[in-house]
Amino acid sequence: MKILFSAPESDWADYRDLLPSALARAGIEAEVVREAAPETVDYIVYAPNDALRDFTPFSRARAVLSLWAGVERIVGNATLTQPLTRMVDAGLERGMVEYVTGHVLRHHLGLDAHVVNPEQDWDPSPPPLAADRPVTMLGLGALGRACAQALAGLGFPVTGWSRTQKDIAGLRCLSGEEGLSEALEGAQIVVTLLPLTSETENLLAAARLALPARGAALINPGRGPLIDDAALLAALDEGRIGHATLDVFRTEPLPRDHPYWHHPRVTVTPHVASATRPATAARVIVENIRRAEAGEPLLHLVDRARGY
Amino acid sequence: MKILFSAPESDWADYRDLLPSALARAGIEAEVVREAAPETVDYIVYAPNDALRDFTPFSRARAVLSLWAGVERIVGNATLTQPLTRMVDAGLERGMVEYVTGHVLRHHLGLDAHVVNPEQDWDPSPPPLAADRPVTMLGLGALGRACAQALAGLGFPVTGWSRTQKDIAGLRCLSGEEGLSEALEGAQIVVTLLPLTSETENLLAAARLALPARGAALINPGRGPLIDDAALLAALDEGRIGHATLDVFRTEPLPRDHPYWHHPRVTVTPHVASATRPATAARVIVENIRRAEAGEPLLHLVDRARGY
Repeated sequence: MKILFSAPESDWADYRDLLPSALARAGIEAEVVREAAPETVDYIVYAPNDALRDFTPFSRARAVLSLWAGVERIVGNATLTQPLTRMVDAGLERGMVEYVTGHVLRHHLGLDAHVVNPEQDWDPSPPPLAADRPVTMLGLGALGRACAQALAGLGFPVTGWSRTQKDIAGLRCLSGEEGLSEALEGAQIVVTLLPLTSETENLLAAARLALPARGAALINPGRGPLIDDAALLAALDEGRIGHATLDVFRTEPLPRDHPYWHHPRVTVTPHVASATRPATAARVIVENIRRAEAGEPLLHLVDRARGY
Repeated sequence: MKILFSAPESDWADYRDLLPSALARAGIEAEVVREAAPETVDYIVYAPNDALRDFTPFSRARAVLSLWAGVERIVGNATLTQPLTRMVDAGLERGMVEYVTGHVLRHHLGLDAHVVNPEQDWDPSPPPLAADRPVTMLGLGALGRACAQALAGLGFPVTGWSRTQKDIAGLRCLSGEEGLSEALEGAQIVVTLLPLTSETENLLAAARLALPARGAALINPGRGPLIDDAALLAALDEGRIGHATLDVFRTEPLPRDHPYWHHPRVTVTPHVASATRPATAARVIVENIRRAEAGEPLLHLVDRARGY
C-alpha cells in the first residue's frame, strides 16, 4: 500500500516517523512517501495549504485524508472525487477547549487589567460569578460542543447555536435564522466555532454585532471570514463590542499594518487555538485507512453539499 | 433573638437587607443589629477585620459566625470561648474555582504574550496540552479540592497535598513533610490554598521554591504569609520561578513601593479570588443559626487547636 504525504515540509517533519509507527501499531503494511506516480497511490494524506490541486490522476486513491479540521480550501475542488475526510483530533479538541476556556475566563475575570496595571490600581471588588455571565457558542460541531460543555461545567449559562437543531444536556440549544438573533441577544461573551461556508461567511456583520450585551467580548478561534472585519472594528470603536480576541484571519500571518494589531480592544493570537497535534492526529489518519480497507464507514467524512 | 452584625460598614451595606430576608425565608424570628448590650446578643456575625476583640461580655452568645474563610486573626483570641465557624460559601468556592482555573490556563496557554505583544510576534506553535502540564495544589480543603477537581476535569495531571492524607478521585494525593517535597518536584504550576497556621507560615521558602520545574508558575490565592517574600523574589530574579500571580499579601492593599508591583515576573491581583458573595454567604450564616437553635452540629466549625 502506498500513502502519499501531500503537505508542506514542516508537516512532514512532524509526521515522517509518527505515521509509519502508527501504521505498524495498527498492523497495516504501507509505505508513506513524499512523491509517487499518481496512479500508484492508495491514500493521500493532505494539508489544504499544499500545492497539490489536481486530484484527477490519482485514479487508485481510496480517500483524501485532511490533516486540517477546516476544508473550505478544498471542498469545492471538482477534481477531488475521492472520499474526503476532515481532521477531528482528540488533541485538537482538547487544545481548543483549553484555548476557549482560558480566553472566556480571561474576559470573565478581567485578567488583562491585572496583567497590565501601571497605575497599581487596587480595586478588590470581585467579578460576577460565571453563573451570571451568559456565554453564546456559535457552532455545535465536535469542537463547539466540547467547548460549550466545558464552559457549562464551570457554571456559565451557555447558549449554543447551530444550523440544524441540536439537543445537548446542560446547554440552551437554538438554531436557524431566528434562533441566531435570540442566541446573540444579551450574550456577554460570544465564541465563534462555525465551519466556513457560503452561509457563514460574514455571519457576524453590523446588525448581528449589535445584539450582544453592550461591551461583550467576542472570541473567534473558528475561521477569519466568519466576521465582517470592518463591522467589527466599528463596533469596537463604539464600545458595543468591548473586546475581540481573534485567532484566525483572512490573511495569515496577520499583516503588520492590519488595524487589529493596533486596536486597544483587540487581542491577536497567532492561529494557535486549533492546532492539530501530530501524535493524536496520526492515529485518526491510520484508523480511517483501517476502516477504508475493512469496508467500514470513514470517520469525519466531508459532506460536499454542506461544505464540511 | 438578637444577632449582632460586627463587621465594617461596607459589609453592613451588603448584608443589611440580605440577612433579615434570609432569616425570614428560614422562618427564624430575629433582629439583626449594629449595636447591642453584649449580654443580650444571641449570635455574632463577625468579620475578622472588625474592631471587636473582647468577646468576654457576650455571655449569652451561642456562636460567632465569621464572614471570612480565613480565621487566623481571631482563632487565638482567648476571650473567644463561643463556638466559631468559618465561612464556606458556595459563591466563594465557585469564585475561587473560576480565579484558579483562569490563572492556571493563563499561564498554561501563555496568554500574557498575546495580551502584550508590541513586536507583533506571530509564532503559531501551540502550547502543550494540559495533559502534559503537571499542576500541584497545596491544600485540599473545600476550596483546594474544588479547584483541583476543576483542573483535573480540564485534563491537567493534578497532585494535591494536604496535612493529613486525603483520597480524592482523579487526583494524586500526598501528605506530610516528605509528600510535600514530592508534590512540588517537577510541578509546572503550583497553587497555594492552605490555611495560615504556625505550620504553614513561610511554607514556601527557598528550599521548597527550588523543587518545581525551572520556570514554573506560582499562584497564591490563599494567604500572603504562606510565602517567604524575599525567597520568592530571589527565585523570580533567577528564573527558577518563571512567574508569580499573587492575590494575597502580608499588608493589603499591597504598598505602592513593594517590589511585587514592579517585578516583571509578578502579577498582583487585589484580593479578589476569595471574595465571599453576600447572597450565598447570608444563607450559610442563617443555616448555622438554624442548626444551633435545633441543637444540630454547626457547619464549618473551627478546630482551635488546628487553627482552622
